[in-house]
Amino acid sequence: MPGLDGPHPITSTQATVGNRTAPADRSREAQLLEMGLRRVLVEKVAPAVDCGRHPAKRTVGDRVVVEADLVADGHEKVAGAVLYRPRGEPTWREAPLEPLPNDRWRGAFVPDRIGRWEYTVEAWVDTFATWRDGLHKKADAGQDVHLELLEGAELVHRAAERTSGEDAEALSEVARALSDEEVDAAVRVEVALDAALAARMHHNPDRTDATRHDPPLALVVDPVRARFSAWYELFPRSSGPNGAHGTLADAAELIPYVAEMGFDVLYLPPIHPIGRTHRKGPNNTLGAGPDDVGCPWAIGAAEGGHKAVHPELGTLDDFRRFVRRANEAGLEVAIDIAFQASPDHPWVKEHPEWFRRRPDGTIQYAENPPKKYQDVYPFDFDSKDWRGLWEELLSVFLFWIDQGVRTFRVDNPHTKSLRFWEWCIDRIKSEHPDVVFLSEAFTRPKLMYALAKLGFTQSYTYFTWRTTRHELAEYLAELTRTEAREFFRPNFWPNTPDILPEHLQHGGRGAFLSRLVLASTLSSSWGMYGPAFELMERVPRPGAEEYVDNEKYQLRDWDLEADHSLRHVVARINRIRRDRPALQHTDNVRFHATDNDELICYSKQWEDDLVLVVVNLDPHHRHSGWVELDLRSLGVDPEHPYLLHDLLGDARYVWHGPRNFVELDPHVMPAHVFEVRRRTRTEVDFDYFE
Amino acid sequence: MPGLDGPHPITSTQATVGNRTAPADRSREAQLLEMGLRRVLVEKVAPAVDCGRHPAKRTVGDRVVVEADLVADGHEKVAGAVLYRPRGEPTWREAPLEPLPNDRWRGAFVPDRIGRWEYTVEAWVDTFATWRDGLHKKADAGQDVHLELLEGAELVHRAAERTSGEDAEALSEVARALSDEEVDAAVRVEVALDAALAARMHHNPDRTDATRHDPPLALVVDPVRARFSAWYELFPRSSGPNGAHGTLADAAELIPYVAEMGFDVLYLPPIHPIGRTHRKGPNNTLGAGPDDVGCPWAIGAAEGGHKAVHPELGTLDDFRRFVRRANEAGLEVAIDIAFQASPDHPWVKEHPEWFRRRPDGTIQYAENPPKKYQDVYPFDFDSKDWRGLWEELLSVFLFWIDQGVRTFRVDNPHTKSLRFWEWCIDRIKSEHPDVVFLSEAFTRPKLMYALAKLGFTQSYTYFTWRTTRHELAEYLAELTRTEAREFFRPNFWPNTPDILPEHLQHGGRGAFLSRLVLASTLSSSWGMYGPAFELMERVPRPGAEEYVDNEKYQLRDWDLEADHSLRHVVARINRIRRDRPALQHTDNVRFHATDNDELICYSKQWEDDLVLVVVNLDPHHRHSGWVELDLRSLGVDPEHPYLLHDLLGDARYVWHGPRNFVELDPHVMPAHVFEVRRRTRTEVDFDYFE
Repeated sequence: MPGLDGPHPITSTQATVGNRTAPADRSREAQLLEMGLRRVLVEKVAPAVDCGRHPAKRTVGDRVVVEADLVADGHEKVAGAVLYRPRGEPTWREAPLEPLPNDRWRGAFVPDRIGRWEYTVEAWVDTFATWRDGLHKKADAGQDVHLELLEGAELVHRAAERTSGEDAEALSEVARALSDEEVDAAVRVEVALDAALAARMHHNPDRTDATRHDPPLALVVDPVRARFSAWYELFPRSSGPNGAHGTLADAAELIPYVAEMGFDVLYLPPIHPIGRTHRKGPNNTLGAGPDDVGCPWAIGAAEGGHKAVHPELGTLDDFRRFVRRANEAGLEVAIDIAFQASPDHPWVKEHPEWFRRRPDGTIQYAENPPKKYQDVYPFDFDSKDWRGLWEELLSVFLFWIDQGVRTFRVDNPHTKSLRFWEWCIDRIKSEHPDVVFLSEAFTRPKLMYALAKLGFTQSYTYFTWRTTRHELAEYLAELTRTEAREFFRPNFWPNTPDILPEHLQHGGRGAFLSRLVLASTLSSSWGMYGPAFELMERVPRPGAEEYVDNEKYQLRDWDLEADHSLRHVVARINRIRRDRPALQHTDNVRFHATDNDELICYSKQWEDDLVLVVVNLDPHHRHSGWVELDLRSLGVDPEHPYLLHDLLGDARYVWHGPRNFVELDPHVMPAHVFEVRRRTRTEVDFDYFE
Repeated sequence: MPGLDGPHPITSTQATVGNRTAPADRSREAQLLEMGLRRVLVEKVAPAVDCGRHPAKRTVGDRVVVEADLVADGHEKVAGAVLYRPRGEPTWREAPLEPLPNDRWRGAFVPDRIGRWEYTVEAWVDTFATWRDGLHKKADAGQDVHLELLEGAELVHRAAERTSGEDAEALSEVARALSDEEVDAAVRVEVALDAALAARMHHNPDRTDATRHDPPLALVVDPVRARFSAWYELFPRSSGPNGAHGTLADAAELIPYVAEMGFDVLYLPPIHPIGRTHRKGPNNTLGAGPDDVGCPWAIGAAEGGHKAVHPELGTLDDFRRFVRRANEAGLEVAIDIAFQASPDHPWVKEHPEWFRRRPDGTIQYAENPPKKYQDVYPFDFDSKDWRGLWEELLSVFLFWIDQGVRTFRVDNPHTKSLRFWEWCIDRIKSEHPDVVFLSEAFTRPKLMYALAKLGFTQSYTYFTWRTTRHELAEYLAELTRTEAREFFRPNFWPNTPDILPEHLQHGGRGAFLSRLVLASTLSSSWGMYGPAFELMERVPRPGAEEYVDNEKYQLRDWDLEADHSLRHVVARINRIRRDRPALQHTDNVRFHATDNDELICYSKQWEDDLVLVVVNLDPHHRHSGWVELDLRSLGVDPEHPYLLHDLLGDARYVWHGPRNFVELDPHVMPAHVFEVRRRTRTEVDFDYFE
C-alpha cells in the first residue's frame, strides 16, 4: 500500500478541543512518520476541479490526460503511473506517466464506459534508472565500475524475485551475468545498459515506498451527446391545424422537419397542465381571457402537476408515442423541468409545507422585488419537510426517465437549492449515467459555474449577448483556457423564447446567419428556438428584449415553408458539424488575427481534421481584410499552397503562406466554414510523374 | 456546528473493495444530505498552498488577507467571516468578510504571536439583508408592504431571542414596533431600514445552517526577521593574527565590523571538527598536506561530529561567548548545518547502518557521476534505522538551539529526504517557533519550492545568475505574483563561497555595486559572503565559477581597512533598508518601463512609504534614458511635481509627470535609491500664506 500525499493539510482538528501538547500533534507526527520512506512528492495533480471537490467531466472514449508534479530529493530518477477505474471496481488500472520539462509528468487513459470514474497518481524512486544513469556516466569517463556492476546485479536480482515467469527468468540471468567477475567489465556494462533490460526493470519496479495522491479524483464520463449536440426548441401547442391548439400528435408531424435540419435533440417547453389562477394573457398581460392558453411554466392544475401531460396536448401515451417517433427519426426528446407551481398545482393542497406561508396565511408567490409573479409559487427549500420535497422532485425526473426521456433542460436551476441539485443529479446519474441535464441559468458567473460543478451536464451561456470579436474571443478563452473547461460544457443559443437579442432585432438576415454560424461552430453544443429563428422572427415586444406575441403566452401559426426560411442553411451547418470531428469539440478553438475588427477568424483541429471559420460580424456591410494564421500550429507547410474548401458556399480557394485575403458580404453569406486541406497536389503527385 | 465544504471530493473510498451499490454510495448520500440546508457554497479559499496541503507563511503583525468565493442560489444575500486561531486554542476568533466584485469576499486578521495558526471561512444566508433589500425596493415602488413588515418583525424577534443584553432589548423593541399595525406603514418602513438595525441584525445572524470550509488551513507565523534580514557570511578561521588559524575569539573581534555594516545575521560555515581522510588541499586539490586546514563541510573527526566545535576554533564555551557578543551587537548568529560526514566522523563507527555499504564493504562516498567526493559520506535515508538517523539529526538542531542559536543555514537540503525535513522542521518549530531555517538549495525549481513548502523559512535563489532587466523582472514576477509568494521567502545573494558569478569576475566595481543594490532592494532578505564581497575579490579559479584560493580550502588574510572596500556603501544600503518599511517586504515590488534595456526601474510601497530604485545594469558604460511611472498606482498626483531624494548619493530631484530622465555612471554609482515624497511644497504651504 503506497503512502498518500493529498490535498489535506496534515493538521490538528483534534487539537481544537484539547490542550496544546495534545494528541493532535502526536497524530500529525504519526502521519509524517508514515510517509518517512516515501521519497517522491506527488503534487498538483490535474485535472482537479476545486482541488478535487468536484469531478472533472469527459465523454466516453475521450483521452483523459492526467498530469502531476513528481518531486524527489537529490538526483534520484523517479517513475509513476496514472491509476484509474470505474467507481466501485476493486482493481486499479494503470497507464504510465511520461516526463515533461520541469518535473511535470503526463499520462492518459480512455474511459470505456459512461458513469463515474476515479483516478489518481502514484510515483516512486526508480532506483535502477538512477543506477543506470550513473553507470553510463562513470563508464564513459573510463572509471572502474566493478562495484557498480555488483550493485546493479543486486537490483536486477531483487526485481527478478519480485516478479515471475519470463521476466523473472530473464532478469535472473542478467543478474548472474552482471555479477560474473570472470567476464570483462566492458561486456557487462553493455549488458547493463541494454535498452531491453531497462524496459524490463521499468515494468517491474519496487513500489513498496511509492507515494499516492489521496483521495482519488472523481471523473464523470458522459455519453458523447453531452459534448456534441444540436438542440431545437419547439412549442408543440403551435402545431395545430388552422390555428387550433396543437397536440403532441400534431407536433409529431413536425419531427421530420426538425430531423431534416440535422438536430439531435428536440426540446419541448413544459408539457404539464397549466394553472388558471393569475394566468397570464398574450404578451405577458395580467388577466387572461377564458380562451387564453396560458404560460407552460405556470405548472399544475386540477388535471395534475409535474407528472401529468396537459390534456390539450394529449395523454401520457401520446407523449410516449411522440418520444418513440422522435427516437426513430434520430432525435432525443428533451423536456423542460421547471420546479415551481401554479396556485392550482395539486401539491399546494397536498404539501402546503413545501411553500412559504405569509403572515396572512397566503402562500408567497415568486418575486424579484419590486416585480411580482403571482401565477407562480416557488418551493421553499428551507421547508421543515425539505427531505420530502427533495424526494418528490427527484421522483419527477425518474418518472419522465421511465417514459423514455434521457435529456432534461432545467429551468432556472439557480433559484433552487444548490445542495438539492448536487444530491438529485448524483442520485439520478448513479442509476442512469446516460442522462443529460442542461442548466438554463442566466445569472452571475460563479453561480453558473457552481451548477455545472455540482452536476449539470451542459449549460446555457452568455454567448447570446456576446457579439464583438473581442467579446467572443475573451469569452471563449474563459470557457476553454481556464479550469471551467474541466466541468462547464457550454451550449450556445442565439435566441430563446425569453431572449430576442438586439442584434437579431436590427441586423436582418445577415445577423441571423452570422449568429447561426458562430453558435454552431464555436461551441460543439448549440441550440435554437424555432421556428422563430429559421423564420427570422424579429419583432420585439416594445421596450423588451423579447418576442412580441410570444409563444410563451399564446399560440403561433408558423409558415414553415416560407421562402425566406433559413432551414436549408441550418441543415447544411448541422451536416457540416456531423461530418467534421473538429467541430464536435469546443476547447480546441483557436483565434487568429485579422486586420479588420469586423472579421473574426478561428480554427478547430481534431486529429487530422482542420476547420477554419471566418465570420463578418457586421450584418449590414460587406467587409474584407487579411487573415493571419499561425501555420506551424495548424500543421500547414508555410512553403506550399494549401486548399480551402468552403463547406457553406462550396467555393474553393488556394491560399499560400500565413496572410490571405477574405471578403464577406452579409447580404449573400457572412461566413466561410472552410475545410482546410493542408497541401495541394503538385507535379510530384501527378500519376505519370517520374 | 456548521456544515463543512472542503477540498475532499465526496467520494467513495469504501466502494473500492465492495460492489457497486455499496455503502460508499450511501455514505456519499449521507454527506450530501448533511449539507442539505446549508445554502452557501464556500469555494476557493485563499491563501491555500497546494490546496491546503502546506501552510502559508506570514510574519507576526502581518495583516493576513483571506479571500473566498461565497455562492448561494437565487437572490439571497450572504454574509461570512474568517475564523482564525493559534493552533491548539479551543476558540475561534473572527473577522468579517466584505464583498468584492463577482461573489468574491475578503477579510483579514493579524496574528499576534509566532507559531502555527489555522484559519477558515464560514458563510451563511443573510435573511434579514435579503428581506431588507426587498422591502426597500417594494416601498420605493409604492407597493403595500404590511405583510413584509410583519415578516421582518418575525426576523427581528427571532434575532432578539438568539442574543441577550442590550441587543436583545433593542431588537425586541424594534420587533414590536414593526408589527404594530396601529402605526403608519411609512413610519415602520423607516424603522425597518434604519442602518443601526441593519448593523445589529448583522451582528446577530442565524448561523444554524452556515457552511464552513473544512479542514481549516494552516499558517506559519514567523518572527519578522524571517521576512526582513541581511546576512553576512564569514569564515572565522580567517580571523587569526598574522595569517594564523583564527579562533572564535579572534572572530568575535570582527563582530563590530559586521554590525557597523548593518547586518542582522552573522553566518558561520560549519564549525565542527574537520575530517582528515581524503582531506582536500588548497583550490580543491586532492591530497592535502599536513598543514592544510581542510574543508569545513567535511564534518567529523576524532574530536567529534555535528555537536562538537573544531578544536582550532575553540570550545563550546567560546562559541557561546561568541553568540552572546554577537547578540549584544544586534546580530543573530547563524550556523551551517550540513548533514554529511567525513570518513572520520564518529557516527561512521557508531552507526554504520546510517551509511550505504558497497559490495566490497566500503561506505559509499558522495558522488555526482562521474564526479566523486571521497572526503564526504552522505547519509542513507533509506537506512533500516532511518528513525534513529532522523532523531539524531533532529538532536543536532536541538543541541545548537540549546547553545543559543536560532538561525540555521542548511547545506544542500535537496540531497536529503524531503520527508525528513517536513518532520524535523515541524518538530523544532512546535517547540521553538522563532527558529529560522535558510535552505541552501540551488537545484530544480520545483525541488526548491518543495523545500520551502515543507518548512524552510527562507531560500537561496537563482538571483545570483539573473542579470538582465528581463530576467530580473521575470524572476521577481515568479516569486511575487504566483503561489510561491505564499510560502517561498527569497534571500538574494550576489555571491557565496561556492559562486563567483561571471558578471562579478568581469564587471569591476560597477558590477559589485549594482548587484549589491539589486540584492538588497529587490528582496527584503539578502546576504553576502564577505569580506570577499566588500573587498571585490574577483579572481576565479581557472575555468570555474568559483574563487581562486577559496576559503573553503585554506585560510585567507583579508585587509578589511582597504581603501577600495565597499563596506561604507554596504552600511548605507543596510541603513536605508532599516529606515524604509517599503524595503522590508519583497512581494510589493513593481517594475516600471524604461526606454533603455540597461536601466532597470522598480518601486516598493508600504503604507505611506514609497521607494523608487533605478539601476544601470551595464557595469562598463554610463547609460541614460527615460523612466515611465504609473503615477496613479504610486499615489503620486500627475498634476504636481514630486520630490525624489537619492538615499544613496543624497542628491534631490524634482520630477513632474510620468516620464523623467535618468543618467547613471557605473564608475561613480550605478544606482539611485530614491525616497519619493509624493508632493512638493507650494505657496499654499508657506507659513504666511493665507
